[in-house]
Amino acid sequence: MEKQHTISVLMENKFGVLARVAGLFCGRGYNIDALTVNKTYDPEVSKMTIVTHGDDAIIEQIDKQLNKLIDVIKVTDLSGSDFVERELALIKVTGTTQKERVEIIKLAESYAGRIVNVQDDELCLEVSGESNRIEDFIKLVESYGIIEIARTGRVAVSRTAGATEDYSDL
Amino acid sequence: MEKQHTISVLMENKFGVLARVAGLFCGRGYNIDALTVNKTYDPEVSKMTIVTHGDDAIIEQIDKQLNKLIDVIKVTDLSGSDFVERELALIKVTGTTQKERVEIIKLAESYAGRIVNVQDDELCLEVSGESNRIEDFIKLVESYGIIEIARTGRVAVSRTAGATEDYSDL
Repeated sequence: MEKQHTISVLMENKFGVLARVAGLFCGRGYNIDALTVNKTYDPEVSKMTIVTHGDDAIIEQIDKQLNKLIDVIKVTDLSGSDFVERELALIKVTGTTQKERVEIIKLAESYAGRIVNVQDDELCLEVSGESNRIEDFIKLVESYGIIEIARTGRVAVSRTAGATEDYSDL
Repeated sequence: MEKQHTISVLMENKFGVLARVAGLFCGRGYNIDALTVNKTYDPEVSKMTIVTHGDDAIIEQIDKQLNKLIDVIKVTDLSGSDFVERELALIKVTGTTQKERVEIIKLAESYAGRIVNVQDDELCLEVSGESNRIEDFIKLVESYGIIEIARTGRVAVSRTAGATEDYSDL
């Protein structure tokens, strides 16, 4: 059965690694639903988090192929395990009347969101949480008129103590 | 002078676009400091936000080369303009004693951060904001012992009303 998976890839912070990973996914026909890559606490190590979907055989292939890439330190499928997953979204919403603006601010507060900017009749909101929580919030405010949405990819870490998939483990 | 730039790329949500962008950066020797790609409000459009650095000539080249790619709808350099920029980090910190854990929670609260998980002597914190705000927070808690950090790439939207760089503009 096709399921969404969050795969974390620790890799050497070297030139061209992203191109190799993206090329691998593209060349083999694997899907990328979202991707984020950034430095970690160790300046020589980057972490990439890929949201993908496919049946079990595909996910196993992705894991094997990623592990074959030079510069890849560790691959972890965080989907089955007990992990904390977060994503951030900036959402620009139209609030023409004061009543609408107050409503939008109340909705954002109920999602522990923040108002990051107000300009004329546009409010920019910051909301974070699990991806489906962000989807729910978008549904809540879309009747006001959504101007723009910018979503980061997901990041995830294990809930289990001592179960860091970080380089310090290696 | 070398400066960090946040470049937003709206593109068709088609297979292989990420590989083409990553290949372009790699092939031409442009740096990628962080990258995030995700869907927008329009399911047919994705948004990629690339953090890169280089002198003005390099940034101009990147802009031109990205615009040449098929499937790229719009390229915006958000660095010079008045924009809201956000990033999210999950940070696992060691808190061995109750005193340490209370201190860490207080520090997180002072940054409007959240405690997302506590397991044995590990606390997982969620912090969001501008990248340098996240760097500052990491410095504040690193003396407790950082186990792991997972950072999303940046996302950014314009502060100016009506200045959305979204597809709806086109």
